[in-house]
Amino acid sequence: MSEEVLGERDLIRRISEILGGVENDDCVVIDAGERYLVVTTDMLHRKTDFPDIMSPWQMGWMSVAVNLSDIAAMGAEPAGVLIAAGLPPEADLYFIDELFSGFGDCASYYGTRILGGDTDSHQELTITGTALGFVEKDRVMRRKGAREGDLLCTTGSLGGAGAGLLAWQEGRLDSPFIEKLLEPEPRLAEGRALAGSGVVTAMMDNSDGLSLSLSDLAGVSQVGFVVEEDALPIAPGLSEAVGKKAAQELVMSAGGDFELVFTVRREGVEEARRACKLTVIGEVVDEGIWIEKGGERKPMAAKGYEHKIGR
Amino acid sequence: MSEEVLGERDLIRRISEILGGVENDDCVVIDAGERYLVVTTDMLHRKTDFPDIMSPWQMGWMSVAVNLSDIAAMGAEPAGVLIAAGLPPEADLYFIDELFSGFGDCASYYGTRILGGDTDSHQELTITGTALGFVEKDRVMRRKGAREGDLLCTTGSLGGAGAGLLAWQEGRLDSPFIEKLLEPEPRLAEGRALAGSGVVTAMMDNSDGLSLSLSDLAGVSQVGFVVEEDALPIAPGLSEAVGKKAAQELVMSAGGDFELVFTVRREGVEEARRACKLTVIGEVVDEGIWIEKGGERKPMAAKGYEHKIGR
Repeated sequence: MSEEVLGERDLIRRISEILGGVENDDCVVIDAGERYLVVTTDMLHRKTDFPDIMSPWQMGWMSVAVNLSDIAAMGAEPAGVLIAAGLPPEADLYFIDELFSGFGDCASYYGTRILGGDTDSHQELTITGTALGFVEKDRVMRRKGAREGDLLCTTGSLGGAGAGLLAWQEGRLDSPFIEKLLEPEPRLAEGRALAGSGVVTAMMDNSDGLSLSLSDLAGVSQVGFVVEEDALPIAPGLSEAVGKKAAQELVMSAGGDFELVFTVRREGVEEARRACKLTVIGEVVDEGIWIEKGGERKPMAAKGYEHKIGR
Repeated sequence: MSEEVLGERDLIRRISEILGGVENDDCVVIDAGERYLVVTTDMLHRKTDFPDIMSPWQMGWMSVAVNLSDIAAMGAEPAGVLIAAGLPPEADLYFIDELFSGFGDCASYYGTRILGGDTDSHQELTITGTALGFVEKDRVMRRKGAREGDLLCTTGSLGGAGAGLLAWQEGRLDSPFIEKLLEPEPRLAEGRALAGSGVVTAMMDNSDGLSLSLSDLAGVSQVGFVVEEDALPIAPGLSEAVGKKAAQELVMSAGGDFELVFTVRREGVEEARRACKLTVIGEVVDEGIWIEKGGERKPMAAKGYEHKIGR
C-alpha cells in the first residue's frame, strides 16, 4: 500500500465508506429549524498551501477566503468563522498580529467575523478554518441537480490564479496574476444572488480547476457537459502572456480561482444574468465531458489540482 | 519577543484584542432562530497530543471526544462533527481505516455522526475536529454566571487521566489509569441533564486540570472559589497508587479528565443531583481561589496543563 498513490478523491471515497456516507457538497448541510446551517472546514499548511512570497496577512486572508468560498457555493449567508491555528516556534508577535489581522479583515470584508477557535504550537504553520452559514431551505445550492439541456455558467474569469502560481514558480514576481493567487475573493454576493434567482440547478466553487469541477458536478448529477472553447472567460491578459493553449490549460487544471461554476435552466438565463455577471460556457448533456470548437467535440481530461496522499 | 514564552491564555488575550473580542466559553454561540448553535474546534498533533502508545483508533476517538466535551459543557445536544485531517506519508490504509473508525465510533457512541471534512497530506499527523450542537436558548450553559454562595460541583472523579499520563511517561503500561487517558468519555448526557435542571449557574469542561478551570471560571464570573480538600473525588485507587499529595497535585494540574465543573444555586443542589451524579467540592466566594482543610484556607496556585507558544 505504501507504494501506492492514493489521490484525495480516492481517499474521500474510502473514508465515506468507513463513515457510512458523507455528502459531496462544498459544505455539510444541517437542519437548523427554519433554515439550513451549512458548515465547511479546510486545513492549510505553510509549505503546501502558502507560496513563500505570501505575507502573514495574506495567509490569514486566504485561510478565511477558501472557507467562505464554500459558503458562497451553497448560496448561503456567512454566520461566522472559527480558526484553529498551529503556530510554529518562529512565529513572532508581528507574524501573529498580521496573520490574525488577515483572518479578521477577510471575515469583515464579507460581512462576518472570527468567532473563536483554538491555538496550539506546531513545527509547521497549520491553519484550519471552519466557516458557518445559513441558507433558506428552498434556496440551498447543491452539486446535484444539473439536468440535460441546462446551460453551464461561471462567474468572473478563469486561469488567473494558475497564471499567478506559474509566475511565482518561475520567479516572475511582477506578474499581475500573483495578487489573484495570493488574495482570492470568494463570490459570496454572487452565490446569494444566484440562490435567490430560483433558476440555478447545481453549483460548486471552482477551487481546483474547471476540469475537476465539471467531473465532480457530472458525477453527482449523473450528467455530462460540453464546454464551448471560445466561450471560456480566460483571465484578461492571460492568453497574451502565456499563449492561448497554455492559458486554456491553466483554466482547466490550475487551482485557486474560486469562481462559482453552476448550471441554469435554459429559460432562466436572463434571470441569472440579473443576479450577477456570468458567462455561459457550455451546456449539460447526457454523458461525457467534452470541449467543443467550431462544431467539433473532443473528450476533456479530468485532471486538476489534487493533493496526493500516501507518497 | 522570540525569547519570551507566550502562554496559550496570553496569546488568546492578544488575539482577542486583534479580532475585537472572542467569547470565553467552551464553544462559540450563534443565534440559529429558535435555538442556539454552539460550535467548537480543536487542533491535535501527533507528537504533542497523542501519547505514542495510542492506537490510531484511539487517536480518532480522542479527536472527536475532546470536541464533544466542549458541546457537553454548553449543555447542548451534538448535531455533528467535521474532521480536517493532515495525514503523514507513513499513514497506510490500516492506519487510515482505524483512525476514521475511531472518529465514527466516538461520534455514534454519543448519538451523532461525522458529517464531512477535509483531508490533506502533512508531515506530522494533524487533526482538527469541529463539533456542532444545538441548545435551547434558556438552557445554554456558560462560564459566566457563578454567584457568591453557589455550590461548586464536578461530575465523575478527578486525576485519573493525569495518573495515566504519568504512568505512560514512567513506562508503567499496565496502569489502570492509562485507558482513562487514551479514551476520554465526554459528559454529554450529564451536560444536557444539568442544563435542563435549571439550577446550574456556570459550567465548563475540566480538560486542563481543576486549578486552571477554576481560574477561568473565576475570571469570567468575577468571583472566587473555596475548594474543600477532603471533598475532592480523587480517582479510585489513585491516592493508594501515588500517595495522597501527588494525587491531589494531579487533580489540580493534570489535563485530560474531561469532567464538567459547574456551580449550582445552593437551594437547587438536590435538583442537580437528580440530573446526574455529582460531587459538591466547595463553594463560590467573593474573590481568590482557596483550598480549605480543617477550616484552614490556603491560596491555590493557578497552574495547569497549558501549551506554550513562542519557544
